[in-house]
Amino acid sequence: MTSLAATPHGRSLPRSYYVDEDVFAADLDAVWRRYWLFAGHTCELAAPGDFLVIEPADESLIVVRADDGRLRALHNTCRHRGSRICDEPAGKAKRFVCPYHQWTYALDGSLQACGGVDLELGIDRGELSLREAHVEEAAGLVFVSLAEDPPPFAGARGDLERMFDRQGLDRAKVAARRGYAVCANWKLVWANNRECWHCHVGHPEYIRANYDTARDNAQARAELDARVAALQDRGFAVDHPDVGLSAFPSPGRWWSVNRTATVPGFQTESVDGLPVAPPMGSHDGHDTGTLRARVLPGFWCHASADHAVTTRLLPVGPLETKVEVTWLVDARAGEGRDYDLDRLLPFWQQTSEQDWALCERNQRGILSSAYLPGPYSPSREANVIAFDDWYLVAMNGRGG
Amino acid sequence: MTSLAATPHGRSLPRSYYVDEDVFAADLDAVWRRYWLFAGHTCELAAPGDFLVIEPADESLIVVRADDGRLRALHNTCRHRGSRICDEPAGKAKRFVCPYHQWTYALDGSLQACGGVDLELGIDRGELSLREAHVEEAAGLVFVSLAEDPPPFAGARGDLERMFDRQGLDRAKVAARRGYAVCANWKLVWANNRECWHCHVGHPEYIRANYDTARDNAQARAELDARVAALQDRGFAVDHPDVGLSAFPSPGRWWSVNRTATVPGFQTESVDGLPVAPPMGSHDGHDTGTLRARVLPGFWCHASADHAVTTRLLPVGPLETKVEVTWLVDARAGEGRDYDLDRLLPFWQQTSEQDWALCERNQRGILSSAYLPGPYSPSREANVIAFDDWYLVAMNGRGG
Amino acid sequence: MTSLAATPHGRSLPRSYYVDEDVFAADLDAVWRRYWLFAGHTCELAAPGDFLVIEPADESLIVVRADDGRLRALHNTCRHRGSRICDEPAGKAKRFVCPYHQWTYALDGSLQACGGVDLELGIDRGELSLREAHVEEAAGLVFVSLAEDPPPFAGARGDLERMFDRQGLDRAKVAARRGYAVCANWKLVWANNRECWHCHVGHPEYIRANYDTARDNAQARAELDARVAALQDRGFAVDHPDVGLSAFPSPGRWWSVNRTATVPGFQTESVDGLPVAPPMGSHDGHDTGTLRARVLPGFWCHASADHAVTTRLLPVGPLETKVEVTWLVDARAGEGRDYDLDRLLPFWQQTSEQDWALCERNQRGILSSAYLPGPYSPSREANVIAFDDWYLVAMNGRGG
Repeated sequence: MTSLAATPHGRSLPRSYYVDEDVFAADLDAVWRRYWLFAGHTCELAAPGDFLVIEPADESLIVVRADDGRLRALHNTCRHRGSRICDEPAGKAKRFVCPYHQWTYALDGSLQACGGVDLELGIDRGELSLREAHVEEAAGLVFVSLAEDPPPFAGARGDLERMFDRQGLDRAKVAARRGYAVCANWKLVWANNRECWHCHVGHPEYIRANYDTARDNAQARAELDARVAALQDRGFAVDHPDVGLSAFPSPGRWWSVNRTATVPGFQTESVDGLPVAPPMGSHDGHDTGTLRARVLPGFWCHASADHAVTTRLLPVGPLETKVEVTWLVDARAGEGRDYDLDRLLPFWQQTSEQDWALCERNQRGILSSAYLPGPYSPSREANVIAFDDWYLVAMNGRGG
Repeated sequence: MTSLAATPHGRSLPRSYYVDEDVFAADLDAVWRRYWLFAGHTCELAAPGDFLVIEPADESLIVVRADDGRLRALHNTCRHRGSRICDEPAGKAKRFVCPYHQWTYALDGSLQACGGVDLELGIDRGELSLREAHVEEAAGLVFVSLAEDPPPFAGARGDLERMFDRQGLDRAKVAARRGYAVCANWKLVWANNRECWHCHVGHPEYIRANYDTARDNAQARAELDARVAALQDRGFAVDHPDVGLSAFPSPGRWWSVNRTATVPGFQTESVDGLPVAPPMGSHDGHDTGTLRARVLPGFWCHASADHAVTTRLLPVGPLETKVEVTWLVDARAGEGRDYDLDRLLPFWQQTSEQDWALCERNQRGILSSAYLPGPYSPSREANVIAFDDWYLVAMNGRGG
Repeated sequence: MTSLAATPHGRSLPRSYYVDEDVFAADLDAVWRRYWLFAGHTCELAAPGDFLVIEPADESLIVVRADDGRLRALHNTCRHRGSRICDEPAGKAKRFVCPYHQWTYALDGSLQACGGVDLELGIDRGELSLREAHVEEAAGLVFVSLAEDPPPFAGARGDLERMFDRQGLDRAKVAARRGYAVCANWKLVWANNRECWHCHVGHPEYIRANYDTARDNAQARAELDARVAALQDRGFAVDHPDVGLSAFPSPGRWWSVNRTATVPGFQTESVDGLPVAPPMGSHDGHDTGTLRARVLPGFWCHASADHAVTTRLLPVGPLETKVEVTWLVDARAGEGRDYDLDRLLPFWQQTSEQDWALCERNQRGILSSAYLPGPYSPSREANVIAFDDWYLVAMNGRGG
């Protein structure tokens, strides 16, 4: 494999990191099979038996609420001869029956029936439970980890639960979902997410609502200070009161949550700034800024008072990343009555699709042998530098 | 390559055996380029010039009846610059003319014309015949082998000719054919064929007609004994008079043939048990049980009195197998007059397609890193254990 | 990699040369990143800002006429983070602006704007120009080389400019273009082009117009001599006055140009031999024989008095070659008035497509493990032997 030492600091990574199969395989081991992967939402897994299937690379996991009310992440591979058990992307089950020879597993993955093979062979049935991955649930968001010993989740949980307290994601519902096969390495998708230099031209809708790309002059300063003060007066912790993006990640910090103000007139992240749905959770009005979270390597979210948008990345290969964007609204809101998809979706659908096109173009240029790691802007791409640093530390196995 | 030693006996094979390119390449060498591959039927190659093309992996063979009445298996690659000679999957030819520079080969593969290159270079024309593979014909079935020195065919020939004597496959005709690209390793397709545990739920049509999954109780025993006795009274050797599948394969035994009884009311393997065509060969009536044959690695067959169904496997890659299912009836039978495809096909078309879906699901589950070799049932999957054993012996080059 | 020593002289190359990924990678280095690749036509790049994009394998080059009137070949990969800059296959630009962060490059590739990253980092902006490849223009044809130090172009330029003097390709226009994805190794496409043995049957239209496959008997000799004399009387150097193909290539000779006579009645290479467009350049009439040129590894051309046809090859993978065929007529000719595509295209469109089918069949046959290098005809395939020799010398790095 390409030596990790050959990465010049402050420049984009060498070509092999974005192109080679063996680096991708190493990424899977060092990152995707080690950290916490966003799987879905509590509201999709409300009652015992509710399940969804998540498929990072060749893996397949059934995330299901068991009878004890706790979530389980069960490998979707029968312990008999390895058949895929569940074909549906989501649903409701009383138990999981392998369609091949009807080996049957309880919602907690324990083997309930195997046609007596355990007796025939003198095997302890307990050894033939579905294999499990770790699963955590915080603030209405569900994460899994394929690691044997994943990094402690407590810090992320604390931040998510504290900051998303009023958002009520656990009492939300999925209003819409869009899936994408983005022809770009997952690291390019993250690098794209970690800077807003490209927003000036790339995201005309987004920059009208947000201070991410605003100049830090006296006028903007005064305007932003007023917006922040108003939020704080209403009891919202605004821990990113500045223009530009908050700093993320850093070695040891694979998650972050923060609230920031929107531009005056933008009560929510919609194209015209006007609300697109009733307030969620315990919000009693609109105009609560944007609440943002990121959890490496596969999750980010923007939440307004009236809706939230989560983005889930899953790696497919060195040149492909699966992306799912989900719009959430309050569970009591009715489509056509309280919200319309025509108004709810465009802001983030357009911004997302603009990003995927930029990422794919980035990937295509890097395929050329003429590509050389280029200089990041320390001011505008500090978070991209930070992401590469975090990634390289993870790849060297020195924690994350 | 994954060490063959790492295979726990009585469990399914490790993941690499079903997934890796290098194991697949080893499979081609140890199995597919060594044993006898089913190519087609005598009735498709009745007269001199009749040919069909068979394409295992990247190979392409023209199987043709030469002017001397004998079959030849000719590599479909011109000895000049390697052009594919014959594009059609089957047909009738007087000779084979390469479309590139019109090098011309007789039906026995000998070079007839090469524009005088032999004279120009002083090469003996005999050195430029089409390369040949071995070919054998028995009981109306045609097999080829890519091996220099294939295993002796005499044993298989003896069993096939003795048991298929009355079936008259050589005087049959192809009534229908269905081709499938099954996204599963060829060993999973065989494993699926070697047990009927999955039939209970997976093959509702099949199990109504057959004793493969019946319980061996007194009532079934009496019923089956009566059916077997009736067959024997009519002169049919029933060498598998029991419920369940006959044992196959074993080291050194890559073929088998046997007759067994059907369930009362099933005069033939049709959905309702009623005949679907006139008796074949020298049969003078229906209700002759099922005559079954298997030849590893690419053939199995079920024959009733009125029709026979052959299945041909060809490997494409570690994750794909090409399958062709062919329905044969007596050559004198007329479609629409003596038989209808609507009645002839469903029993085996449904059973086959049910199997391919199970195999593909099996493959998908094995792709997960969570897959572990699982325990076979010694009673219900003895033939799968036997197949794995046969395969591992073949892979170690200790004969087969 | 397969030892180059294992190639028997006078026979087609071993299978690996036409099939293996690693030989293809070596081909890219030894041939495609070393020699001069045909890019397009001067008439497509007439004015400053006119550009076209050429994509050999994973590379992408913008060939553009800069403000100083000279052509540049710029790697289409931003020096910032590697994004593809230009998505269009051709067009007109004042400058090139990367769509990601608007880094801006002049037509000569020099960096004009990078949001001040140069100042921020203290980097000399001159170090961040787009990387360049070599480019040469001769007789209205444009060639690029990815080599650091490509072979001298002067010899090819001299021959092209001398022989194409009257053809006026620089004052031509593109009348039509057809693109093909040919499923064959690029060496098979060249081998096909270097002999006309296959023309007898493969190219019925082509052989009616040309002496390439004619027998060298007294009658043909007299006819051809008269045609050559007539051309010479009109001041055309006919440096190939014989039947059959002119000799090309040889070690050290990767280009050639020659004029030869057509069959009486064929004033141009059209299906019926009648003119299909007004005379090009400084030609004052038709019936000027055929002017042919080849530049390894990606170009050949046939020019009649009234039109020219160029063929551009680009490698995609061991089993795929991208081909573009372009028809040129005089820039002043008007479609529908002076020429019709229905009459202009068929001769070379049919001949080209016949060739691609032959090449693809050749490739398929070579995929078989039964393929063995076969004997070339020293008389009819001398140029194929010469091509293989040239290629093997290039692969050994002993010049070309």
